[in-house]
Amino acid sequence: MPHLPRALAGFARSLPRQLPKSRPNGTAATSIRSQQRCFTSRQPQVLPRALRRGIRRAGIQCHQIRFKSDAEAPVAPTTPIPPKSRSRILHYAYKGLASLGLFMVISGGLVVAFFIYDASTYQDDPETSDIPVSEYALNPRRGGPKNLPIVDYFIDDDDTDDMKTQKHKPKLVILGTGWGSVALLKQLDPGDYHVTVVSPSNHFLFTPMLPSATVGTLELRSLVEPVRKIVKRVKGHFLKALAVDVDFSEKLLEISSTAANGKEERFYLPYDKLVVGVGSVTNPHGVKGLEHCHFLKDISDARLIRNQVIRNLEIACLPTTPDEERRRLLSFVVSGGGPTGVEFAAELYDMLNEDLCKFYPRVLRNEISVHVIQSRSHILNTYDEALSKFAEARFAHDNVDIQTNARVKEVQADRIIYTQKDDEGKLITKELSHGFCLWSTGVSQNEFCQTLAAKIDSQNNRHALETDTHLRLVGAPMGDVYVIGDASTVQNNVSDHIISFLRTLAWEKGKDPTNMKISYPDWRHVAKRVKSRFPQASDHLRRLDKLFEQYDKDKSGSLDFGELSELLRQIDSKLTSLPATAQRANQQGEYLARKFNKLAHASPGLAMNSINDGDIDEAVYKAFEYKHLGSLAYIGNAAIFDINGMNFGGGLLAVYLWRSIYFAQSVSLRTRCLLAMDWSKRALFGRDMMNY
Amino acid sequence: MPHLPRALAGFARSLPRQLPKSRPNGTAATSIRSQQRCFTSRQPQVLPRALRRGIRRAGIQCHQIRFKSDAEAPVAPTTPIPPKSRSRILHYAYKGLASLGLFMVISGGLVVAFFIYDASTYQDDPETSDIPVSEYALNPRRGGPKNLPIVDYFIDDDDTDDMKTQKHKPKLVILGTGWGSVALLKQLDPGDYHVTVVSPSNHFLFTPMLPSATVGTLELRSLVEPVRKIVKRVKGHFLKALAVDVDFSEKLLEISSTAANGKEERFYLPYDKLVVGVGSVTNPHGVKGLEHCHFLKDISDARLIRNQVIRNLEIACLPTTPDEERRRLLSFVVSGGGPTGVEFAAELYDMLNEDLCKFYPRVLRNEISVHVIQSRSHILNTYDEALSKFAEARFAHDNVDIQTNARVKEVQADRIIYTQKDDEGKLITKELSHGFCLWSTGVSQNEFCQTLAAKIDSQNNRHALETDTHLRLVGAPMGDVYVIGDASTVQNNVSDHIISFLRTLAWEKGKDPTNMKISYPDWRHVAKRVKSRFPQASDHLRRLDKLFEQYDKDKSGSLDFGELSELLRQIDSKLTSLPATAQRANQQGEYLARKFNKLAHASPGLAMNSINDGDIDEAVYKAFEYKHLGSLAYIGNAAIFDINGMNFGGGLLAVYLWRSIYFAQSVSLRTRCLLAMDWSKRALFGRDMMNY
Repeated sequence: MPHLPRALAGFARSLPRQLPKSRPNGTAATSIRSQQRCFTSRQPQVLPRALRRGIRRAGIQCHQIRFKSDAEAPVAPTTPIPPKSRSRILHYAYKGLASLGLFMVISGGLVVAFFIYDASTYQDDPETSDIPVSEYALNPRRGGPKNLPIVDYFIDDDDTDDMKTQKHKPKLVILGTGWGSVALLKQLDPGDYHVTVVSPSNHFLFTPMLPSATVGTLELRSLVEPVRKIVKRVKGHFLKALAVDVDFSEKLLEISSTAANGKEERFYLPYDKLVVGVGSVTNPHGVKGLEHCHFLKDISDARLIRNQVIRNLEIACLPTTPDEERRRLLSFVVSGGGPTGVEFAAELYDMLNEDLCKFYPRVLRNEISVHVIQSRSHILNTYDEALSKFAEARFAHDNVDIQTNARVKEVQADRIIYTQKDDEGKLITKELSHGFCLWSTGVSQNEFCQTLAAKIDSQNNRHALETDTHLRLVGAPMGDVYVIGDASTVQNNVSDHIISFLRTLAWEKGKDPTNMKISYPDWRHVAKRVKSRFPQASDHLRRLDKLFEQYDKDKSGSLDFGELSELLRQIDSKLTSLPATAQRANQQGEYLARKFNKLAHASPGLAMNSINDGDIDEAVYKAFEYKHLGSLAYIGNAAIFDINGMNFGGGLLAVYLWRSIYFAQSVSLRTRCLLAMDWSKRALFGRDMMNY
Repeated sequence: MPHLPRALAGFARSLPRQLPKSRPNGTAATSIRSQQRCFTSRQPQVLPRALRRGIRRAGIQCHQIRFKSDAEAPVAPTTPIPPKSRSRILHYAYKGLASLGLFMVISGGLVVAFFIYDASTYQDDPETSDIPVSEYALNPRRGGPKNLPIVDYFIDDDDTDDMKTQKHKPKLVILGTGWGSVALLKQLDPGDYHVTVVSPSNHFLFTPMLPSATVGTLELRSLVEPVRKIVKRVKGHFLKALAVDVDFSEKLLEISSTAANGKEERFYLPYDKLVVGVGSVTNPHGVKGLEHCHFLKDISDARLIRNQVIRNLEIACLPTTPDEERRRLLSFVVSGGGPTGVEFAAELYDMLNEDLCKFYPRVLRNEISVHVIQSRSHILNTYDEALSKFAEARFAHDNVDIQTNARVKEVQADRIIYTQKDDEGKLITKELSHGFCLWSTGVSQNEFCQTLAAKIDSQNNRHALETDTHLRLVGAPMGDVYVIGDASTVQNNVSDHIISFLRTLAWEKGKDPTNMKISYPDWRHVAKRVKSRFPQASDHLRRLDKLFEQYDKDKSGSLDFGELSELLRQIDSKLTSLPATAQRANQQGEYLARKFNKLAHASPGLAMNSINDGDIDEAVYKAFEYKHLGSLAYIGNAAIFDINGMNFGGGLLAVYLWRSIYFAQSVSLRTRCLLAMDWSKRALFGRDMMNY
């Protein structure tokens, strides 16, 4: 960085010249000159030589540079003072240039610094030291119910000193690399566990912005982060493979991997703690012909959609494409009016509105239609109704067609068939011809979760694996298996549990539960216990006095068993299951990480007190409590927010807010930089209209 | 931008304070103060009030800010001067902070300005005007030899006023969107032709940097530019389709397009001028098993390679992968030691060396091998031998294995079999197990070119279509069909042509050519004609006197017909055909653009003088002359250059030079920005190790 000091010196040198310019009067420097003369003539004896030279220099500089033309002017000006404005403009222009110069110099310095940094990132000499690899890692023992290789050791167990010490720590196996698993990995203290992550995809996907990647507003790479980078923090291991089964008794996870020749291979991975964060699959809702649809779950889906959209546009330009076929190709249908479907429709509309006309024949713009088919009465039905209506108004303005109360019956290669209720409530079958159909209608359990559910009698939910409020898989050995994210649902059977609480209470008091009367203080005690165990019930247990009064129908001042049961059942019915969102998965992952950190610290003590595994969770950490932070959605150069009951929507400023929220939540500095680059790129160059 | 003026004001305010700091002595300002006193006391009557105020201000400012602690100091200092260093540090610190503040303010202002610009790029209200489309465009007439639709008009012919006026201009059809076609499109004057570009790919690929995209040093999007953006400049049309045949007599191009249902459709596109820039296909050299190889011609190839490399690394990490299989998966073989193969090997090595160790088990790094199989005795055999050796030394240092004088016999799924000459010249069959094989061994004619060559008797070159020096397809009607880029080769039969020149000369002089004696002035005249027609011969026709002397074997002072023929044949043999590079295609495209621009301007005049089409080319513009600008190659944190006979290679600085050359040649501002972003991204975050 040789530029900076020199720049400062140059800056210092330029300063004296600027002094007289800030004077209100142009003749100031001339006066200074005479002033100097007076000075040197009257007080030569008290000034050291260096000082005299310094003053002379400064004076001369002022004179030479600023007032060349005034050199012959009289000391006392008798001519009128020249207008100030011109010198002021000059003055600001000069300063502006100086500032700009300084800015360029600093920017240049930063660029040079960056190049120096860049040069330091290239490794020239390959590392060639010998790497110790355990024989057990190369030739694993066989065993388990199916006599498969059991992978106790990994080829990178001895790679670093940290990894060596971690080798014999409890084995924490994490399935999946979605929001839940990554949140867990990012919060987990390194060193406490021997971590292994198993997933068929080696990237974490920032799902909320996936619709933006389908049309090139964002690039695919900006939404994904290599999982190995994240796993590296906890010195863990990553296996690109698929979990297929679990043996709870031997604590073995059965894993299927694909060899280079495409053959499937299976092996066992032992675990002490297993976290299932395998996510979900798209719900087909029993509709035929979904092979004609696109989905939007993974980053490769976004690439396929992008290619298909451009392909349709290109075919629509061909002279051999008849008019009707062109209209069909340009008819984009989205089945599902949830956030994904709506945001995709919005992004697609943006692209067609902003970029299409610039490069494709204008007639295409007129023949394009975007349709959203929604089964409920409003799109975005999980949002506040005002927001749904705001979004619908926005889409109406954009000529995006919204079909509500419509159920898709069948998707064919060139049309989609759906039924819709007319005003009289009669079902009418309609159809739409389409050149592109996106299927985004909720989630369903994947194969691995189905296998797990089938092994456990107490798992009855068709859509997800049930966990208790400590996120432990219900029916599996306590403290061994946890489920987070879309794969899980937290059990809501509050009343059953509370009634068992009640029975405990009765037994404690030595009374018969059926005849027991519960006083208001008792009720407060019960409610407190309920809240601590089911945090999501807190909202409904706020006004304990009112509830007590309301359900004390005989006005006896106490609740009997029947009255209390009724109260709790009512509360239970109000609790909905948690939404299948990134937010929930993220919070669950962070919760588990905090718990595991505490467990690791507490376990030596607990083991000394011979407290068994199952109870540790509840002993060391509170139950999981979901905090809804709000929902937001992009709806085409506008965005809507539903944050803590505050609902608002708006245009561009809201879009910038929407972006900044996701920017802040983005997984790494890398993705943040890439997002900023992508947004700048769109502003400067538009979206790329290419497919390959 | 409210920040800027405020910043300037702050800057202005800070200036006077800095004046005394550049003085060599700390007591200077105190002296100025006394100086001021002297001034004001002695000459109050001649100074206007404003001036006095101005001077007082300046003096006071100096005093207040700089010398607070010196306020009570005597006019003539008797105490020792305080140490300068502390105040100087403060002074620089202050200036540093002020500069930094200014820098931040200007940067902030730029960011705000960018956001304002960004906000202006969103279109809110969809365009809904009616678009006129010609009935002829929607229902084209049928005709031609195969009675197919003939596309005279397009659906976007009436989109803008410019396009309307262009509708009846000569039809220029350009096949392909590679270097040649894009260079032509970028240089062509808009408005002179009705331009239609036909290509199966809607992007232009910056081929020289393609190897960098295979491992993620650069992103795919940074190397491609949407063709529609380039075509837009000349208000042209683009069809994503494939040319299959040409009818020279009716001037119809037969085009095959794929409908949405996958069915092939054919139509005719009429042309007045046809430019064939369809490029080439990879040369299989008759080797079996190329289905097991990757190629590197298009951007999608780079994506496939990237995914395959990461896939191999991931499989190598699985515990079920045996040791030997791991070594096979990590054995990367490149068949072909030309620039593409060598640069790929270099990029692959960089990635494995710089990024692999960070995230994958360390043992992988030790088991990786990269091999280059080259049929010649050196890699990069088109470069200077010193450079080849430099590259080989570099690869030897990097443990990249180079097999020279080796010919691949067969590629199998897991091994590659090749023969190599041993020291005694005996052929030995060897094999290498591989997990990845890249085939990059020269180019061959594609199907369309073969079809064209088969139609024309005079086309005998197996590898490319022959053109004359005006780039006109030999054998096709003069001035109708041009071939550029890899698809073409410029005819080299100099001697035949010159002898026919000679005959013309003889007839002009009324002499029998076989008996004619050519004097030195005559020879100069002939040589001049030869140079103007075959520019690539110029180098060999520099020393005309020496040549004359050398071939005048009987020392008669004149050449006879036999001697002259011998001379010209020698020159002909020295001329090699032009290389199949981006550089040549680019120059040919630019050449054609300049010629077409001239033709458009000259044609009215020529038509008035009833000069027929065939002669126009030679009348309006000189023959194509290839200027070799040099070759460069990246060889793994080093680069080599072969520019105008100057050969040099080097490390990082050379790499930066290599990058800046390609940066400058990149197709658009967009790709340049993206390249800079990608390089920064690599420096900051490394390469992404993901596949999807």
